[in-house]
Amino acid sequence: MNIKKVNFNTSSTTFYFAAGIAHLKEFVDVQHAVMLVDEQVFNQHAKRFKGWKTIILKSGEQYKKQSTVDAIIKQLIELGADRKTILIGVGGGVATDVTGYIASIYMRGIKFGFIPATILGMVDASIGGKNGIDVGVYKNMVGTINQPSFILHDLALLNTLPEIEWQNGFAEIIKHACIKDAVMFRELEANSLKKYQSKKTLLCDLIQRNALIKTNVVIKDEFETGDRKLLNFGHTFGHAIENTYKLSHGYAVAVGMVMACMISEAYQGFKDTNRVVELIKKYGLPVHQSYNAKKVIDVMKADKKKVKDVISYVLLQKIGKAVVEPIAISEVENIITQLEAK
Amino acid sequence: MNIKKVNFNTSSTTFYFAAGIAHLKEFVDVQHAVMLVDEQVFNQHAKRFKGWKTIILKSGEQYKKQSTVDAIIKQLIELGADRKTILIGVGGGVATDVTGYIASIYMRGIKFGFIPATILGMVDASIGGKNGIDVGVYKNMVGTINQPSFILHDLALLNTLPEIEWQNGFAEIIKHACIKDAVMFRELEANSLKKYQSKKTLLCDLIQRNALIKTNVVIKDEFETGDRKLLNFGHTFGHAIENTYKLSHGYAVAVGMVMACMISEAYQGFKDTNRVVELIKKYGLPVHQSYNAKKVIDVMKADKKKVKDVISYVLLQKIGKAVVEPIAISEVENIITQLEAK
Ligand SMILES: NC(=O)c1ccc[n+]([C@@H]2O[C@H](COP(=O)([O-])OP(=O)(O)OC[C@H]3O[C@@H](n4cnc5c(N)ncnc54)[C@H](O)[C@@H]3O)[C@@H](O)[C@H]2O)c1
Ligand SMILES: NC(=O)c1ccc[n+]([C@@H]2O[C@H](COP(=O)([O-])OP(=O)(O)OC[C@H]3O[C@@H](n4cnc5c(N)ncnc54)[C@H](O)[C@@H]3O)[C@@H](O)[C@H]2O)c1
Ligand SMILES: [Zn+2]
Ligand SMILES: [Zn+2]
Repeated sequence: MNIKKVNFNTSSTTFYFAAGIAHLKEFVDVQHAVMLVDEQVFNQHAKRFKGWKTIILKSGEQYKKQSTVDAIIKQLIELGADRKTILIGVGGGVATDVTGYIASIYMRGIKFGFIPATILGMVDASIGGKNGIDVGVYKNMVGTINQPSFILHDLALLNTLPEIEWQNGFAEIIKHACIKDAVMFRELEANSLKKYQSKKTLLCDLIQRNALIKTNVVIKDEFETGDRKLLNFGHTFGHAIENTYKLSHGYAVAVGMVMACMISEAYQGFKDTNRVVELIKKYGLPVHQSYNAKKVIDVMKADKKKVKDVISYVLLQKIGKAVVEPIAISEVENIITQLEAK
Repeated sequence: MNIKKVNFNTSSTTFYFAAGIAHLKEFVDVQHAVMLVDEQVFNQHAKRFKGWKTIILKSGEQYKKQSTVDAIIKQLIELGADRKTILIGVGGGVATDVTGYIASIYMRGIKFGFIPATILGMVDASIGGKNGIDVGVYKNMVGTINQPSFILHDLALLNTLPEIEWQNGFAEIIKHACIKDAVMFRELEANSLKKYQSKKTLLCDLIQRNALIKTNVVIKDEFETGDRKLLNFGHTFGHAIENTYKLSHGYAVAVGMVMACMISEAYQGFKDTNRVVELIKKYGLPVHQSYNAKKVIDVMKADKKKVKDVISYVLLQKIGKAVVEPIAISEVENIITQLEAK
């Protein structure tokens, strides 16, 4: 186990890397804890949760919505959860987003911690304090920013993680490499998904490194006025195609990163699109998706990250160095329409 | 107009006392504002809202719930509200609680301000950043703590305020006098509701003074670990009888203050119960309600302010000086059962 405490603006989070759910009792009082556990995770690791009060969360993005929140709040009331209660979200980003949100509003805020059970959860979703739910087609339309008191990594949970979720998680890892870490980019080029899956220490290092990349970006800019925007690399176009073409998030981001690389060529003189494309392919992720430009632009226009008619597009100057460039939505429309035919 | 800026832990609120809705345009951009207006207030003051985007909030505590929030969020999305939008809650505590809550979760938090339209709203509910909604019988079970950027008082709104809402508001004013301001207590003894209603300057002073009493308590203790608890004077028993006996909030608090005075006699040697009783009566509020002790205790046990089996009871040492005394719920049960017969 490797403990690391990080300070955000008004609160702190303690990471327990390379830990195990069994360690939880050392710092959480079982009496006051309620676990909100993703159904898949619970079914496949039931015995780890013995002795803990648990509420099962149905798996899947489609349950990341208000009616789920309503149902859980009812159960918390029935369980007698009060201001001393700590909620622990166990699962992927859906479970941790929902748990963080509920903990932030239940009785005007109670403590919470996370045990992410997906790669994406460990390196991305559990970190940074953003939580929330979707409203209809609008992702994360409602939520708060509020840091968990702890994040515990139990890599044994990954034994049951489906292959596509590994790929989804690695899309974010590649994103981190692109925007912040050229050395890690080369390491990823030299290794493969199979290798990380079979070498626990290699994986453990990679996950911790990525968790800290995201953490450091967030610490610099908790309320997303600057640097935190870099984490949206690949996500502007990614989000716009994710729902419309029913892509998994990682797949959509992978395609979005390629799109961002191409825009980076034009706006920032970026030269390594090809290396990014090859790396994305190496990790089983797609680099292209045919799309309808008008549809894509309509979704982008509705995005809450858009301020008036300008999109803050994250571009690469080189591998490991990203910048935010405000681009008029009309220009983005032109680019996307031009590339549509290709 | 009298402008006063106060700093809370992480944000600040600007008060515009003795102002008017007409002044709003001086510091709020109409283009980016959406007003959430209590239906009664809107109907009776419609022309004041000309030129502003408005969403009507149904009046009454029964609409302070998730389904209202769901409906408003839908309307905000339809109106294209984004991160630059400022929400302005206009009405009593229901309108400001709901507005503050929605602004705190919509897109993970947008700006908001309040124009309280009840006495209670002006001296109490709009101040301190607590917001939220009820969940079934549980009041304010869900919410956040988040300060408005401004609070504007337009006393002309009070021209249409029903008499009972004046009384409800004065219950909180009497509460403030009891816990913090013996001089104001005497002023209240010397005056009457009629007098405050007919003398605008007297009323204006009183409201501002009370708004600042609450503000100062909150500044000292934004997250309610100490001094802020004093504001619960009369509210422990008050809340416990409010729903069960269908009392208005002010009526319940008035009865609760009398109960707290009697407990103060036993625990703190308090000697002025009679003065408090007379003052409460003078402002048209009740001093007694027959109740069923078991029912009352059951509600108290479910109260989120209870930590384990102890209630933090707010008692008076003398008029103007309150303390928090932790009393075992079993003892509270004894007292309430003894007094039940009287
Ligand atoms: N808060 C943030 O900053 C942030 C950042 C990125 C993503 N997110 C959110 O995260 C969500 C996506 O997270 P995700 O990719 O982890 O998806 P997820 O939570 O839906 O999990 C993916 C799937 O894997 C299953 N699963 C999870 N762990 C498992 C395990 N150990 N073994 C077997 N199955 C397992 C789940 O049941 C689910 O079916 C989205 O809702 C997204 O908005 C949030
Ligand atoms: N956030 C806090 O710190 C805090 C503190 C105290 C109370 N509250 C909350 O405030 C609420 C009670 O507030 P309230 O007493 O103002 O009740 P309210 O908002 O229900 O208003 C009372 C009634 O007066 C009407 N009304 C309001 N202004 C009017 C006007 N100018 N003219 C005519 N009619 C008008 C309303 O339509 C309503 O019917 C409760 O939900 C309570 O939980 C919150
Ligand atoms: Zn992502
Ligand atoms: Zn009150």
